[in-house]
Amino acid sequence: MTVPHARPHATDPAPTPAPIRPSPTVDVAGLQALLDGKEHAIRDTVRALLATPDFAHLYGQSTADYRERVLVWTQKLAAAGLGALSVPEAQGGQGNARAFVAAFETLAYHDLSLTIKFGVQFGLFQGSVQLLGTTWHHETFLPAISRGEMLGMFAMSELGSGSNVRDLETTATYDATTEEFVIDTPHGGAHKEWIGNAALHGRMATVFAQLITGGISHGVHAFLVPVRDTDGSPMPGVRIADTGEKEGLNGVDNGRIWFDDVRIPRSHLLNRFGDVAADGTYTSPIESPAHRFFTMIGTLVGGRITIALSGLSAAKSALTIAIRYGNRRTQFGPEGGNHTPLLDYRTHQRRLLPALATTIVLDVALSRLVDRYAAMEPGESREVEGLAAGLKAYTTWFAQSAITEARECCGGQGYLKINRIAVLRADIDVWTTFEGDNTVLVQLLAKGLLTGYRQEFDEMGMIRFLTRRARSAIRALNPVAARRDDEDHLRDPQQQVSLLRYREERILDRAAARLRAAMKAGQGEAGSASMGGVQDHLMHLATAHVERESFEAMQAEVERAEPGLRPTLALLRDLYWAAAVERDLGWFLMSGAVETPKAKAIRYLVNKCCAELRPIAEQVTDAFAIPDALLAAPIAFDPLPTAGN
Amino acid sequence: MTVPHARPHATDPAPTPAPIRPSPTVDVAGLQALLDGKEHAIRDTVRALLATPDFAHLYGQSTADYRERVLVWTQKLAAAGLGALSVPEAQGGQGNARAFVAAFETLAYHDLSLTIKFGVQFGLFQGSVQLLGTTWHHETFLPAISRGEMLGMFAMSELGSGSNVRDLETTATYDATTEEFVIDTPHGGAHKEWIGNAALHGRMATVFAQLITGGISHGVHAFLVPVRDTDGSPMPGVRIADTGEKEGLNGVDNGRIWFDDVRIPRSHLLNRFGDVAADGTYTSPIESPAHRFFTMIGTLVGGRITIALSGLSAAKSALTIAIRYGNRRTQFGPEGGNHTPLLDYRTHQRRLLPALATTIVLDVALSRLVDRYAAMEPGESREVEGLAAGLKAYTTWFAQSAITEARECCGGQGYLKINRIAVLRADIDVWTTFEGDNTVLVQLLAKGLLTGYRQEFDEMGMIRFLTRRARSAIRALNPVAARRDDEDHLRDPQQQVSLLRYREERILDRAAARLRAAMKAGQGEAGSASMGGVQDHLMHLATAHVERESFEAMQAEVERAEPGLRPTLALLRDLYWAAAVERDLGWFLMSGAVETPKAKAIRYLVNKCCAELRPIAEQVTDAFAIPDALLAAPIAFDPLPTAGN
Ligand SMILES: Cc1cc2nc3c(=O)[nH]c(=O)nc-3n(C[C@H](O)[C@H](O)[C@H](O)COP(=O)(O)OP(=O)(O)OC[C@H]3O[C@@H](n4cnc5c(N)ncnc54)[C@H](O)[C@@H]3O)c2cc1C
Ligand SMILES: Cc1cc2nc3c(=O)[nH]c(=O)nc-3n(C[C@H](O)[C@H](O)[C@H](O)COP(=O)(O)OP(=O)(O)OC[C@H]3O[C@@H](n4cnc5c(N)ncnc54)[C@H](O)[C@@H]3O)c2cc1C
Repeated sequence: MTVPHARPHATDPAPTPAPIRPSPTVDVAGLQALLDGKEHAIRDTVRALLATPDFAHLYGQSTADYRERVLVWTQKLAAAGLGALSVPEAQGGQGNARAFVAAFETLAYHDLSLTIKFGVQFGLFQGSVQLLGTTWHHETFLPAISRGEMLGMFAMSELGSGSNVRDLETTATYDATTEEFVIDTPHGGAHKEWIGNAALHGRMATVFAQLITGGISHGVHAFLVPVRDTDGSPMPGVRIADTGEKEGLNGVDNGRIWFDDVRIPRSHLLNRFGDVAADGTYTSPIESPAHRFFTMIGTLVGGRITIALSGLSAAKSALTIAIRYGNRRTQFGPEGGNHTPLLDYRTHQRRLLPALATTIVLDVALSRLVDRYAAMEPGESREVEGLAAGLKAYTTWFAQSAITEARECCGGQGYLKINRIAVLRADIDVWTTFEGDNTVLVQLLAKGLLTGYRQEFDEMGMIRFLTRRARSAIRALNPVAARRDDEDHLRDPQQQVSLLRYREERILDRAAARLRAAMKAGQGEAGSASMGGVQDHLMHLATAHVERESFEAMQAEVERAEPGLRPTLALLRDLYWAAAVERDLGWFLMSGAVETPKAKAIRYLVNKCCAELRPIAEQVTDAFAIPDALLAAPIAFDPLPTAGN
Repeated sequence: MTVPHARPHATDPAPTPAPIRPSPTVDVAGLQALLDGKEHAIRDTVRALLATPDFAHLYGQSTADYRERVLVWTQKLAAAGLGALSVPEAQGGQGNARAFVAAFETLAYHDLSLTIKFGVQFGLFQGSVQLLGTTWHHETFLPAISRGEMLGMFAMSELGSGSNVRDLETTATYDATTEEFVIDTPHGGAHKEWIGNAALHGRMATVFAQLITGGISHGVHAFLVPVRDTDGSPMPGVRIADTGEKEGLNGVDNGRIWFDDVRIPRSHLLNRFGDVAADGTYTSPIESPAHRFFTMIGTLVGGRITIALSGLSAAKSALTIAIRYGNRRTQFGPEGGNHTPLLDYRTHQRRLLPALATTIVLDVALSRLVDRYAAMEPGESREVEGLAAGLKAYTTWFAQSAITEARECCGGQGYLKINRIAVLRADIDVWTTFEGDNTVLVQLLAKGLLTGYRQEFDEMGMIRFLTRRARSAIRALNPVAARRDDEDHLRDPQQQVSLLRYREERILDRAAARLRAAMKAGQGEAGSASMGGVQDHLMHLATAHVERESFEAMQAEVERAEPGLRPTLALLRDLYWAAAVERDLGWFLMSGAVETPKAKAIRYLVNKCCAELRPIAEQVTDAFAIPDALLAAPIAFDPLPTAGN
């Protein structure tokens, strides 16, 4: 997956550039309303709560103190009712998953350890009980969990099985004589690893284990296992260790857990997708074990969406700080002294402004995904899961690189914790790894697209399928369009989207063809490596898909927008598009869809859009409405600090 | 500057790929001898010293304890004589700057706070006395400095003037009545900022200030200013504050310093390039103030080279850990379970192996730069300074991205401090900022290249100049060569280098032409923005120059190598070259130097070289000879940890 990387690219501009268009006027309130969406009220509630003095940022505290502080914060959020947003009304909640997602996203303007601790408790742990359990579990556990009285964990990963969840080794063996499951860690390396809330605060865990009954394994299922007494000591048979110091997120107490024949009642199986009767008989509404596994895992897709959204919030904070600083900090000047605001430098614009445009586009794309997720029909789940996987990977890689660039754009100031970007940088690094490693997720999306491709092919019949493809290829490969380098053409959303569609379809065709060829080559060495041999195609395919989907989501907003907001959105769309195509210019040129004059004009368009966005960039960040107390970085405010003198 | 970024790119392979060539056998000892070079003895000394238990890594300590530990370590290094390596023999040293550089580079296999504290004291502070001072300063100060008895600082940067050193505002006003300089911070924001050793341990500082005598300013000069008493309290008129918590390098006590009319004797001016007589008369061996400033700053270029080398050492540690883990960690497998070593995945190979090849190439290029620096003739300094600036920027950006990728390649393990990559990641982030911000340095190099271009043009006369250029363009634009996609052609170093040369020359031509046009357009808005308007060209030019220089340095080693080592070096060269061209494929295609079949074959060549390097990658890292005690990460050793069970 080629992700946005804010470093300046070279340009080889068209010979007679048209003048820079005037910058649009930003309707900040309108843009904020668009970004805040239907759930604006809960966002404002969270903003106000986090801006209170209780939540002030602190740096340089010990890990023990930090964990304690994050625990207290988490309990304050629960006390404010934020833990219960997605819980059914019957269990005292609001039954509003969208509000929960919006709250989570807004929380990520603050300390990311708090975001993750909150997510472990009210997203992963509570979500697993809600989505994998049935009425008894809901009634028995959700009220206490959602109020933060029963702190818990989501214990899926093992040291030996990280990305490969399906082959995890913890066992849950049913004992019909006592009507209990016996949870066991079969060997040292099969313990639960990295588990949030395990080292100190969690009392109950959703443990994923291979369900065995009557000597037969039925695959991975989830079980509620008490791991700590009310006084905090581990339950008999449970051993817990601290994961230790991490690069970031040290306010979260990650831990390891070993189970030594720990017995839990039969009722503690979260039995929505598979159940064991008192006599040990296994039943499931889903026949195929593979299908069952993916359905179970699929219910957890909400976690991926929130991780993507929270990563994007962190990028918003970092970009806001760097853009505000870039408007205030001056360095060098034509006649000596320091008179040039950093954002006047083209390099600086290229480092920050395409990233700002991408941030808005990804926000819009993720909102649309949340809508689809909330309205998900059973048949549509593959698409939603695939897109969630792809957007999680794309957004978190993007956030990582945008935050790195923002740090560097603030020079030495960016390296100080008090200016926050550096702290975000250390925390965000793991966003690419947890809730599904990005490289693995991207392949999940690509494989889903290939499956869809095969189905379409089978359903339509080869001839119709190929005809349709050929038509779209002709549209995109129009030799006039491939050479046109005038601005009206380049900024026409029709041609923009057709180029992105063409890329996706063509890569899909090629990947499918290559895969078929590799599979034909037999089960030998080439055969077993068939997926491996197209792995890099799959990465590219996923990028092309995510960028096209995101573009379309943005274009829909441009069309829907009030006339006052439309020019700003169109500019952001143009910059996003031009930067995305520029990153992959080699491919577009090789494919013939773009020829040299157009390629040069696209590079030049990035510069032009940057120049248009530059005067209004700070206003665009105002629409994120990050409260001053949360933004906090002294370098983001007037006057710039003179370090206490 | 487009820098190596290890993320997988898409490939669209040639239709009938030739089989993968067998991997060469690695002569590990020979490769180590090449990398260690003439200074291998001092490298071994440093390796052995750092591997003693005194230097064991520790994580999670408080900032205060960490700083104390790093101080003790620094003093141990001084006691072992490492501080005196570059000091003249007359002052008790060894007069061997190359040995100092090699020691510094090796130190960076250990804690980077120690590396930087050592560098501040024995590189920057001591180096300024040695290179900017004269005999009296050498005799009076160097012995105590080199033994670590007098700890000091290099106080150049100010809060207001970071990158723009020339316009810094601290003043040193000569008072002829007392034969003293008066050092003063004119206003709050002009204090010295970020200064290493300032918060706690430094007693003396080399302070850069505007020298004023008889009411006339002669520009920036360096002065030795005592800032702390022997008991550690600030001298009268000196105020010091702690810079605070940073993203990394918290073992270094960075601080801020304000001077309030602090008086120092006239002898404390480091007077090699400018002196003030007792009566206040200013004299300098260099007439032009601008030339004088750049000469003074130019002497400090060694610092940039060591920063590049130390960044590369950090990348070596991270890549070694990730490659060793990639050989041991298994995840997924064709028949379930976890049986596939991560390095078998093509994505994983593409994330780590081009970076490994680049590391070796940059090592070779930097060694050549050290040779040129040590043998530098006055007339050659612009080239050496330019290349040092470019290689510092390129190498540190590379190190940052390689370490980020290595972290991610280790999954959750990579996020644990005990596995070291995460610690390196947080430290290395500032390598792109200090000793000259990368974006600023890259422009320095590019401007130097443009100056050289103009001079060549003037000296040769337009006709001869253009004829030579045209000839080289014809060579590179040969339509047969632009299409050839067979492996023999692609792996021919002659065509490899001619492609890189063509790129550099053509970008230089274009940038020069664009600059001329912009300057002609007058002093108006376009005129003052003339440099700004080509900033992105300048970034690209610098990349092209650094990559071509590095390639040539590597090719020289391939030619010089023993037959047993040559195939390994050639493979690393091919992978480096193919990955570099692939990153900039859009430009090569637009320029016509590469056409589609060749472009596809280059992408495929990256995959092939990865497959050839994969079986021997760990052996290549063995040639770094990082002692186990320094590498330290449990995930880099057999058997993989099972976390205490
Ligand atoms: C701070 C933190 C908190 C966490 N919290 C929790 C938690 O609360 N609960 C929980 O259950 N888990 C948690 N995790 C675990 C997390 O989900 C795992 O780290 C993640 O799933 C990756 O697994 P792994 O670390 O074993 O990496 P691995 O699976 O070993 O992957 C290592 C590398 O190999 C690559 N790789 C693996 N397979 C392939 C393939 N097929 N093709 C190409 N490349 C491949 C990956 O891209 C990755 O770069 C947490 C982790 C961290 C670091
Ligand atoms: C941990 C640490 C230790 C340090 N130790 C020392 C020390 O011991 N002694 C010492 O003297 N200094 C030290 N420094 C200071 C360091 O050298 C400066 O931070 C560095 O020179 C950059 O200056 P700045 O931070 O003011 O950034 P700025 O100059 O403000 O630059 C900020 C951003 O603007 C961009 N920018 C600036 N000018 C231009 C331009 N013309 N064109 C395009 N972009 C531009 C830069 O690329 C950068 O991204 C240290 C810094 C740190 C963080």
